[in-house]
Amino acid sequence: MRIPKAILNLIESFEKLPGIGPKTAQRLTFYLLHVPQGELDKFSESIQNLKKGTVLCSVCFAVGEKDPCHICADEKRDKSIICVVEEALDVFSIERSGKFGGVYHVLHGRIDPLNSIGPDEIYISQLLQRVKETSNGVKRVKEIILATNPTMEGEATAMYIAKKLREQSTINRQSPQMRDPAAAGQSTITRIGRGLPMGADIEYADEITLQRALEGRQVYE
Amino acid sequence: MRIPKAILNLIESFEKLPGIGPKTAQRLTFYLLHVPQGELDKFSESIQNLKKGTVLCSVCFAVGEKDPCHICADEKRDKSIICVVEEALDVFSIERSGKFGGVYHVLHGRIDPLNSIGPDEIYISQLLQRVKETSNGVKRVKEIILATNPTMEGEATAMYIAKKLREQSTINRQSPQMRDPAAAGQSTITRIGRGLPMGADIEYADEITLQRALEGRQVYE
Repeated sequence: MRIPKAILNLIESFEKLPGIGPKTAQRLTFYLLHVPQGELDKFSESIQNLKKGTVLCSVCFAVGEKDPCHICADEKRDKSIICVVEEALDVFSIERSGKFGGVYHVLHGRIDPLNSIGPDEIYISQLLQRVKETSNGVKRVKEIILATNPTMEGEATAMYIAKKLREQSTINRQSPQMRDPAAAGQSTITRIGRGLPMGADIEYADEITLQRALEGRQVYE
Repeated sequence: MRIPKAILNLIESFEKLPGIGPKTAQRLTFYLLHVPQGELDKFSESIQNLKKGTVLCSVCFAVGEKDPCHICADEKRDKSIICVVEEALDVFSIERSGKFGGVYHVLHGRIDPLNSIGPDEIYISQLLQRVKETSNGVKRVKEIILATNPTMEGEATAMYIAKKLREQSTINRQSPQMRDPAAAGQSTITRIGRGLPMGADIEYADEITLQRALEGRQVYE
């Protein structure tokens, strides 16, 4: 059976996307056959210009329109709190929550030995460098929030970064809320809260989530 | 939060595809940020050229590289048997089975009142016209296989087409295998076999599938 080359090409391109198998790729391609050429041109242009219209911020490695990105360039953001995330997309998710006034550091991946991604494949050394920087002998960064995903790989990445940060300098082990003013020159490492997501049902929660939720319990106010 | 325009545009384009929601659209877009520009250019070109590199066959309305398509142009294909399918993709699926030597008719949809698609929105009148054609007073088409999907809409479409074909001329009600040579000038309408798919388990089959499987039972050879 001779499937037209134009169709095969597009099926092939779709198949390369994550989570899209051969059947979905076919379905999407044949769907696009019914779409007006103007729409196809727009779609095609968006793909072509995706990377041309974006740059990696040289400070936090987030994806933005300018370098430094508008978060790093924002005077109002607290540069002493760095939230470490796996992917650029995570920045937008946390920003959407509207609850974070610090800055970010995007790792662009996670330590994942099964897929041969080691610490050097992601932006960890740049994070260590950022934390190390001082101005007038005082550490600029007061808190590093490890906001990698609560998965095997995300936890391993968080552990590795914490270990490296501790090797590189004294780290304050107190919670940021009760920080000792005398320890002003030290940084604190925190891990993003883990527990039951909103709308969840304890009955259906897995053991590890419940374990984390109990560990992470807080005084009820 | 200002998401770069280049990213928003692509997310928007992906969201328009069937079965792709806002979250998947985001994930695909951010995945493409890690892909080399050369790959993006290839993807972009495939979309741009999808419709330019294909034409609708004016005989069977399948999607091909030429008009008439290579199936309609093939001397070896039996032009007296027309297999009626809903979508161009179905032609490739049936061709892959390698079991069909006739020609096709692509409806490009199904009768679906809930989505306001009536008989006139799809290529039914062209099918009726094709079946009506005679050469030297003898009907050219001997069998019309209704291979629309065994869904509510597909069944309704098959019923509608059968009714219209019967209105337009005498239809042979005998099975094509035992066709009376005297009825040479008549056409037979058949429906593609429905029953248990290969690898299925009777225990998990739904009632209607089992019903159809029993109705469609055949002498065991």
